[in-house]
Amino acid sequence: MHPNDPILRSFVEVAPDSHFPIQNLPFGVFSTDADRAPRVGVAIGDRILDLAALEEAGLLAADPSGGRVFARRSLNPFIALGRDAWRQVRVRVSELLRHDSPILRDDPALRARALVPMAGARAHLPVEVGDYTDFYSSREHATNVGSMFRDPKNALLPNWLHLPVGYNGRASSVVVSGTPVRRPNGQTKEPTADQPSFGPSRKLDIELETAFIVGRGNALGEPIPVDEAEGHIFGMVLMNDWSARDIQQWEYVPLGPFNAKSFATSISPWVVTLDALEPFRVPGPPQDPEPLPYLRQVDKASVDLHLEVALRPDGNADATTVCRTNFRHLYWSMAQQLAHHTISGCNTRVGDLMGSGTISGPEPDSFGSLLELTWNGRNPLALAGGGERSFLEDGDEVTITGWCQGDGYRIGFGEVTGRVTPALG
Amino acid sequence: MHPNDPILRSFVEVAPDSHFPIQNLPFGVFSTDADRAPRVGVAIGDRILDLAALEEAGLLAADPSGGRVFARRSLNPFIALGRDAWRQVRVRVSELLRHDSPILRDDPALRARALVPMAGARAHLPVEVGDYTDFYSSREHATNVGSMFRDPKNALLPNWLHLPVGYNGRASSVVVSGTPVRRPNGQTKEPTADQPSFGPSRKLDIELETAFIVGRGNALGEPIPVDEAEGHIFGMVLMNDWSARDIQQWEYVPLGPFNAKSFATSISPWVVTLDALEPFRVPGPPQDPEPLPYLRQVDKASVDLHLEVALRPDGNADATTVCRTNFRHLYWSMAQQLAHHTISGCNTRVGDLMGSGTISGPEPDSFGSLLELTWNGRNPLALAGGGERSFLEDGDEVTITGWCQGDGYRIGFGEVTGRVTPALG
Repeated sequence: MHPNDPILRSFVEVAPDSHFPIQNLPFGVFSTDADRAPRVGVAIGDRILDLAALEEAGLLAADPSGGRVFARRSLNPFIALGRDAWRQVRVRVSELLRHDSPILRDDPALRARALVPMAGARAHLPVEVGDYTDFYSSREHATNVGSMFRDPKNALLPNWLHLPVGYNGRASSVVVSGTPVRRPNGQTKEPTADQPSFGPSRKLDIELETAFIVGRGNALGEPIPVDEAEGHIFGMVLMNDWSARDIQQWEYVPLGPFNAKSFATSISPWVVTLDALEPFRVPGPPQDPEPLPYLRQVDKASVDLHLEVALRPDGNADATTVCRTNFRHLYWSMAQQLAHHTISGCNTRVGDLMGSGTISGPEPDSFGSLLELTWNGRNPLALAGGGERSFLEDGDEVTITGWCQGDGYRIGFGEVTGRVTPALG
Repeated sequence: MHPNDPILRSFVEVAPDSHFPIQNLPFGVFSTDADRAPRVGVAIGDRILDLAALEEAGLLAADPSGGRVFARRSLNPFIALGRDAWRQVRVRVSELLRHDSPILRDDPALRARALVPMAGARAHLPVEVGDYTDFYSSREHATNVGSMFRDPKNALLPNWLHLPVGYNGRASSVVVSGTPVRRPNGQTKEPTADQPSFGPSRKLDIELETAFIVGRGNALGEPIPVDEAEGHIFGMVLMNDWSARDIQQWEYVPLGPFNAKSFATSISPWVVTLDALEPFRVPGPPQDPEPLPYLRQVDKASVDLHLEVALRPDGNADATTVCRTNFRHLYWSMAQQLAHHTISGCNTRVGDLMGSGTISGPEPDSFGSLLELTWNGRNPLALAGGGERSFLEDGDEVTITGWCQGDGYRIGFGEVTGRVTPALG
């Protein structure tokens, strides 16, 4: 049976609204108090299947040459084995988790060792990120920003409809969900001030994004054609590209954002494979003007992936959902992003992280940043339990979640969350 | 005796204009036909001292815990040992190479094994680069670019004198000197055209830069103070940040250069330590307005480092020196760059590469790019042996070299060279 088949069930109990049914099987890296060595696992319901334990038990062999790829602190060695290996492992894990498969189900000792409660586990960064690139592929986001800071009548810059604009981000500060985010200090300049001043950012913001992880690199000088690009993608995560708008505004001309975004970029711990997303592929928005030939894509370019952002102030019991949107609004696809990125001959490597850019939809409550949701602070958001927000305050916790809704099940991404801590004094 | 003492001599013969006298001792990674395993060496005259061979012979122990740090394919494990280890190894290597030290001098078998002719060795990338950052710290360069593309009367942007502007570069395409550079394809748009077009860059350029290598990282959220920054720097290399000006012009607003610079960045193979440069430290240019406190530096911020660029067309016997300049012209220092980079809390790691930005001096023949030297192609350069150049043509070989001139000796960087090959058809 195909591992995406909706009829499949696992002997591990999975709630209907769980993000991790047997049809998903996302990969991540975790550790536990009992075993502090980070290792590779697969999420199933509210459990983690420990692939290192299965490998050790002789039930899972991903590397034909006999190497251990799951008792490792990142997914990179596994990913480097290639797409055939990803698919074989996903099929094998699906078989082992099926309700009618006795191997794991009926072996209490192995189950105790290999099925770890997620609640007691610690998530680690799933990949060692070589380079981190961030695109700017939401037309609605680019239009909102252009309207606010430039000219509402010419909000999109001339290049925007011709190429997926992107920039190089900082790889060292990519952190896993749950890592606290310290408010950055930096230079800012008020429009009316003569001189810049120094201090904590007063416009700390989020960016709702997804990112894909490169599963197969390309050699320097050898671009990836757009119709082969998805074969180079291992999977996707949720991402919050924390941004200090006031620092950004002062620093970004002419070389782009730097300190405003280099202090933290949070990603979700579970990498959802493109294979698991296959049933939810949809066409992207129409592209007019037609892109140059190296960017023309005929496949279903997008994914019907619902996304939400929730904000919970320190001490509040309840979070407020401040944004509901969908990945399918994105104008430029992942394949187009990767084809454009490499058309110069730029090489990519296993584990490279490529962000979508802020994902905003057409409705005001579908914007993917506080900058847009509050229109640069002019229209603060009301919060459940009282209070309002223009930008983030110390103690605020931001959680992004996302899932594809199937018939009676969800292919979910879990969440990426982070709490703001005060700036250094 | 201090390893910088000009009186020191080696039993290895060193020509007076050699870049690698016993006072220098730069670190790199090399291999030979006889031993294809990349390993760490130190340049001395026209030889390489094989530190892995010395380590194996029990003559050099850098790691107090007994680990092997020189039989490795990058300098990172050695650098990670910290500044005390760098200094102890430099002192020890200096002692072993002195004309009056018999240990290596009088052991023909060890000499044959440990002193490798540089001409027969292959240079490798000296460090594994985590993140690559490029600054924009030459006032003359920023003024030239601003004059050409914006407004000669307001050439410097408002932020430029207040902070060292920088951007994140692409780490995957950092290559060692000698690696061929394929002309990139990409989107460009003529000012008079309605639509962009696709093809090989017609404005392929160089950027004369230096770069420093981070020797000691900082934790996320914990900035490096400016007066401690140099303690975090291992050493410096020469760098050519190849740039496609026509691709850059079309893509760079608003997020900065991307495909225009991601296809190759070449660095020299020998890392010259800050310790070796100590005798050549000089103050940088006066800074007015005074920088904010986190950027104020009281030490000698710069280095008297002479730099040259030579261009040799395919088939020409002679190269033409097209630029002569000096590192000391740079407005923002390495310490200021690193302090600014981390003031947001951004973490750095051993092996991170941080470029100076194009180094231009005040005279027209001291500009560090063809863009400036030819004023965007309007004033082509005459070449020795005939012909002229506005931008690079296929087959052109560009070589950057640089050295500090001592009394009768040079602390040199060797060279970074690369030859342009045709674009993919």
